[in-house]
Amino acid sequence: MSVLVLTTGGTIDKVYFDASSEYEVGEPTVPHVFREAGVALDWRLESLMRKDSLEINDEDRAAIRAACEAAPESRILITHGTDTMSITAEKLTGISGKTIVLTGALAPARFKTTDAIFNLGLALGAVQSLPPGVHLAMNGTIFEAGKVCKNREAGRFEATGP
Amino acid sequence: MSVLVLTTGGTIDKVYFDASSEYEVGEPTVPHVFREAGVALDWRLESLMRKDSLEINDEDRAAIRAACEAAPESRILITHGTDTMSITAEKLTGISGKTIVLTGALAPARFKTTDAIFNLGLALGAVQSLPPGVHLAMNGTIFEAGKVCKNREAGRFEATGP
Amino acid sequence: MSVLVLTTGGTIDKVYFDASSEYEVGEPTVPHVFREAGVALDWRLESLMRKDSLEINDEDRAAIRAACEAAPESRILITHGTDTMSITAEKLTGISGKTIVLTGALAPARFKTTDAIFNLGLALGAVQSLPPGVHLAMNGTIFEAGKVCKNREAGRFEATGP
Amino acid sequence: MSVLVLTTGGTIDKVYFDASSEYEVGEPTVPHVFREAGVALDWRLESLMRKDSLEINDEDRAAIRAACEAAPESRILITHGTDTMSITAEKLTGISGKTIVLTGALAPARFKTTDAIFNLGLALGAVQSLPPGVHLAMNGTIFEAGKVCKNREAGRFEATGP
Repeated sequence: MSVLVLTTGGTIDKVYFDASSEYEVGEPTVPHVFREAGVALDWRLESLMRKDSLEINDEDRAAIRAACEAAPESRILITHGTDTMSITAEKLTGISGKTIVLTGALAPARFKTTDAIFNLGLALGAVQSLPPGVHLAMNGTIFEAGKVCKNREAGRFEATGP
Repeated sequence: MSVLVLTTGGTIDKVYFDASSEYEVGEPTVPHVFREAGVALDWRLESLMRKDSLEINDEDRAAIRAACEAAPESRILITHGTDTMSITAEKLTGISGKTIVLTGALAPARFKTTDAIFNLGLALGAVQSLPPGVHLAMNGTIFEAGKVCKNREAGRFEATGP
Repeated sequence: MSVLVLTTGGTIDKVYFDASSEYEVGEPTVPHVFREAGVALDWRLESLMRKDSLEINDEDRAAIRAACEAAPESRILITHGTDTMSITAEKLTGISGKTIVLTGALAPARFKTTDAIFNLGLALGAVQSLPPGVHLAMNGTIFEAGKVCKNREAGRFEATGP
Repeated sequence: MSVLVLTTGGTIDKVYFDASSEYEVGEPTVPHVFREAGVALDWRLESLMRKDSLEINDEDRAAIRAACEAAPESRILITHGTDTMSITAEKLTGISGKTIVLTGALAPARFKTTDAIFNLGLALGAVQSLPPGVHLAMNGTIFEAGKVCKNREAGRFEATGP
């Protein structure tokens, strides 16, 4: 089994630059996390963009969808900012034969206390185990695309609708 | 969906006591890791035993199986030492209607560099996504029970046989 | 021996808020770091302000000096942003009978990789050991006030002049 | 100013080997910690031995003393196991013109929660600031050799005598 990891930016990859107190999306953190966890699965990284998810627009979403469709892999893990992750997830539904799982983090992977490492594990476990379709992996939970949204005040993802 | 977390000991829960340089299995680390990762799923902890997996015997395995069978939950995550994890996995096959995923760690969760947090995420993602059956979640990979063993020299789990 | 810890803000206390991607000076990190290090010395915290050091002005520096003069302790450790730490240090020279050491961090204490914990140790070691006077403790080095500046491009403090 | 770092083993350098659950003194952790803290001071490492401090005998202490006497540096930081650190400290008194500071850790540097990094900072701050003599840097405190012992039950160092 082979997994494609598509990175698009978001808090999970945020870094902090002291000189100017800037806070920017940096290099994908996935290779570092996978190495530390001893991931022995066959996987490939494609870094599509480095954006806050509030800046991701329809064109970006079309590019993400195109990358999923073009990929030889049938299992795709996408890292994405949390604010619009559920919107992107909905735009990816209906791609035949592909299991897609989106994840991200509420605190940067470079923090001492972060959900990034756990969430990447969660998503990698789900993407290997689910049938084709689109899911979100956040807060220890696997949500179906279209049935989840971020509760910004509570700082967590919640199931929606019936 | 509700998940039962059964803990049995192993490196994942190892702690170090300075005074006597002892190195023992301590409190389950799962509640701490789940809290830090913001796990919002419904889950319950049952701490069955605290053993190095080399000390886990047939009686212990029978107790683990009985706990799985008796659990009201149909999704069960088991933390276990790595040395005999694949043996325990095989002993749990054939329980009808239960999705069981075993995981553990090569380095204690209390270490700065550890696979414990990632592995717990990996197992939690898989246990929510798989149909009934028994699997191992290690090295970023979901293995089927009976088709995996630990390569002690390489320090990782590998698929076996055809 | 009793040590006063004066906090003024700076990167060492920076926290990150996801919802709005704000990045602000938070609670002093010193109590947490001292607890984890098992500090058994008698010490007292006074949180004077929470500012980026680029925002610290002459009035603030007068307040810091007044707090040093008024303190019953003769040993004072000050945490401060790095950009103007050397300026504040110079403004504190000439207080009779007080050993003052300033420190801070180039990466927030809440990061996985940070100089904050080491620097607080460095400053606490120096403030107990030096005669009255003002010093900076950064980059593993104890500098005399007036003979040090931050090299922003290199991201480190360097001795100046003869 | 140039500092010699002599390493002798102890908990600070302990590592854990999964395969056999051994727990041994590993490579000195100092270079890693100094790099992460951006130490820009001139320093040199000499790894004398790798022992639990309960195994350090009179011959070892003579070797440590000889290394201090032979060193071109006048400032020497020694890492040492905590159980007999105060004994070694006493054996090093009376070396003319040398400022010697011993430190170690109650939890290995490779742990998520450890006093090792703070203690190395503490010792490096003290060794640059003190006049010739022998001191211990533990629990955030600079103790004079001969006036300190480890309280094993409380797990901390305490001043002794008058």
